Amino acid sequence: MSATPESVGADLHALLDGRDWTRLRERLAQLPVQDVAAGMLGQAPERRMLLFRLLPRERSAEVFSYLNPEQQDALLTDLTADETRHILARLPPDDRTALLQELPAEVTRRLLKLLPPPALRQARGLLGYPPESVGRLMTPDYIAVQPDWTVARALKAIRAGAERGETANVIYVVDARGRLLDAIELRRFILAPPRARVQRLMTRQAVSLPAFEDREAAVRVIQHYDLHAVPVVDSDGALLGIVTVDDVMDVAQQEATEDFHKMGTVGAFKGSVREASPLTLYRKRVPWLVMLVFANLLTGVGIAYYEATIEAVITLVFFMPLIVASGGNAGAQAATLMVRAIATGQAHAHDWARLLAKELAVSLALGVTMGLVIWGIGAIRGGAGVGIAVALSMVCVVIVGSTIGMMLPFLLNRLKLDPAAASAPLITSIADIVGVLIYFSIATAILGLPAP
Amino acid sequence: MSATPESVGADLHALLDGRDWTRLRERLAQLPVQDVAAGMLGQAPERRMLLFRLLPRERSAEVFSYLNPEQQDALLTDLTADETRHILARLPPDDRTALLQELPAEVTRRLLKLLPPPALRQARGLLGYPPESVGRLMTPDYIAVQPDWTVARALKAIRAGAERGETANVIYVVDARGRLLDAIELRRFILAPPRARVQRLMTRQAVSLPAFEDREAAVRVIQHYDLHAVPVVDSDGALLGIVTVDDVMDVAQQEATEDFHKMGTVGAFKGSVREASPLTLYRKRVPWLVMLVFANLLTGVGIAYYEATIEAVITLVFFMPLIVASGGNAGAQAATLMVRAIATGQAHAHDWARLLAKELAVSLALGVTMGLVIWGIGAIRGGAGVGIAVALSMVCVVIVGSTIGMMLPFLLNRLKLDPAAASAPLITSIADIVGVLIYFSIATAILGLPAP
Repeated sequence: MSATPESVGADLHALLDGRDWTRLRERLAQLPVQDVAAGMLGQAPERRMLLFRLLPRERSAEVFSYLNPEQQDALLTDLTADETRHILARLPPDDRTALLQELPAEVTRRLLKLLPPPALRQARGLLGYPPESVGRLMTPDYIAVQPDWTVARALKAIRAGAERGETANVIYVVDARGRLLDAIELRRFILAPPRARVQRLMTRQAVSLPAFEDREAAVRVIQHYDLHAVPVVDSDGALLGIVTVDDVMDVAQQEATEDFHKMGTVGAFKGSVREASPLTLYRKRVPWLVMLVFANLLTGVGIAYYEATIEAVITLVFFMPLIVASGGNAGAQAATLMVRAIATGQAHAHDWARLLAKELAVSLALGVTMGLVIWGIGAIRGGAGVGIAVALSMVCVVIVGSTIGMMLPFLLNRLKLDPAAASAPLITSIADIVGVLIYFSIATAILGLPAP
Repeated sequence: MSATPESVGADLHALLDGRDWTRLRERLAQLPVQDVAAGMLGQAPERRMLLFRLLPRERSAEVFSYLNPEQQDALLTDLTADETRHILARLPPDDRTALLQELPAEVTRRLLKLLPPPALRQARGLLGYPPESVGRLMTPDYIAVQPDWTVARALKAIRAGAERGETANVIYVVDARGRLLDAIELRRFILAPPRARVQRLMTRQAVSLPAFEDREAAVRVIQHYDLHAVPVVDSDGALLGIVTVDDVMDVAQQEATEDFHKMGTVGAFKGSVREASPLTLYRKRVPWLVMLVFANLLTGVGIAYYEATIEAVITLVFFMPLIVASGGNAGAQAATLMVRAIATGQAHAHDWARLLAKELAVSLALGVTMGLVIWGIGAIRGGAGVGIAVALSMVCVVIVGSTIGMMLPFLLNRLKLDPAAASAPLITSIADIVGVLIYFSIATAILGLPAP
């Protein structure tokens, strides 16, 4: 029953082509706003503008809030000041914050001028919180009641709030000074006798977050406590706003994408790969690639150092990529496990020693398995000595690679850097250098070659 | 204000050590159930059992539902049949399904025998849906009303349902034959005049999912439409149950972790790295490592083929790791971007040609940048010929590596395999083989060496 963005897009496209304005207006009035936005995604800019102007006026702000930042920016340059004012005034405060923080500073300044004074104060307030903070995600559109009110009075306030479009699934209880006392589900008000006091419904188990906290904390708290929204408070405990589960789901997805990209040595960028320009992609990819070139040059230096060994037994080069890559692969596995465990809160800084002990046991077993696999091949191709050298190197390289891969995320975390920077390509490059040194030094010793 | 699992765990631990039963019972009765469960996570099994038995009886099922599968399994072996029956009867149906599908088959059979007949029918029904389907995630605890009811009558039904503990944020409208007509937020019932008919509140925009659909569809629909729950229907459109946003958030996190692990060539496993046994980790890591050994052997074969070239110009070995690794790194970047874009629905199968064109442009720019970086170093170390050979190889290897990295996820997707199997280590291994062949063939040609 759910339409795909493609089918909606094709449908709107066909109606535009056929100039069937009546049916087009009808569709734009009836489709869920999220589908209208998704259907506009694939259209050319002038068609997108046309569709946007055909939208019923009361839906335009909502559809606008579901477009991505680049498209919002493009639309804003073409809309009249009056149209822009209308949309801005009707955007929910959290979406308005999201829009204003994505746009170039001069556009943001221009837009702020179009806001009516109360919305302007609110927008300035929300933009005052640090980027990626809980404060930037929150909306002040919540409903608050007081503990000494009757349920009947509270329900009246709830009705008035819901009519103004405020989130009503959870109702917040605050004291006379605005400090958060509790969060109560709407349905408990409906079940309670109308003359009971609100305080009778309170359990004082509400979890809240400070506005300056990192937004990932909102993801963790909402997920841990299965909440629909988490209240945000200032240092005095006064209720400032709420962060809702739908915003948090988007943040969780963005954070996972960022970690994913970092693990693949791609810099963080907004928007989708499909929309990103080649220049953006180039800029996000080139720094790590060039940095890794220098790391890989070190591997070459290691090889040059053992040139005599290689010239003496050229077969050793045959096994080099294999041994070196195996250390990198085992290290990439260990790093992946740790990066994700740290990101999801399953591993903590103080767990490192226990996890290291386990990693040593696992990597010893992995190394021995792979050493056995390669032993015979080494012996057949290069004789007994090469077989032993190759197998022993494999064991050492896998253990060392795994240990580096496991520890690097913790080290980065300790240095207040992002653990996800412990990417597969970085681990592979480090393991390459270490692997070459381990392999040729073991081979030189076992084959009784002169030390370089 | 939110307690960390560690602090709760340490607190419970201390109270247990001090045998302070009164305060322990008090804490167990007051802490949010999710925190009690998290606090039990780090305890030794016998302590966990003790804590569980000290819980107020009415909270035990809820705490149990927040434990992870291994711990639930361990507790179940120690609980009496009566205690088990109590917990099972009180678990929400969706959590019961989750428990029964995780446990070994013989335990599941034993537990099913302990269920009262209606719960047994329900459990059998939910377990009848395929693993990882929407049906397995759903709960039949929703509230349904009919279109010709008055709002007052509907509110009565809502109160009765909410008292039975059913999800009441969204109310479902069904016809006399149980077919889903609409989903209406609870607050709209509170705002409506009591004598109005339910049909006056309907907009008929409800999105629903078939029970046999993959559970990732529930993630996408709830995220796209910002829903609190999505209704699940059978082929006739009859309402079977609902999937709520909290379950969907857990699924989204699990799916992201699975993709993460696959990208790091670690097999999927349940539970956390911290809890996983060394044997489990070994089993999940060894298959890919051994498979990649054989891929890397092919690189050795490539090198052996060019042995004469290497012996003629040994400096070429110096640049080999660098060039080969750069292709792998660029390929890993491209694969990472595509895997994530496919997983989040930002790229579709039919986008491949457009994305390939963009990838070719980006990788040409990347290759030229890196070729320029390495040109001088090559010329200084090996003369003008080596400089050109190294730079030209770099350009080719980066373009070929990127193209492989970009296309492999689409190819796997086309073959109905998981795109995330296009892991950095796999791409690196393929790029190694291709890179060696490109590098030595270009070098052989440019340096005028005899072909092997």
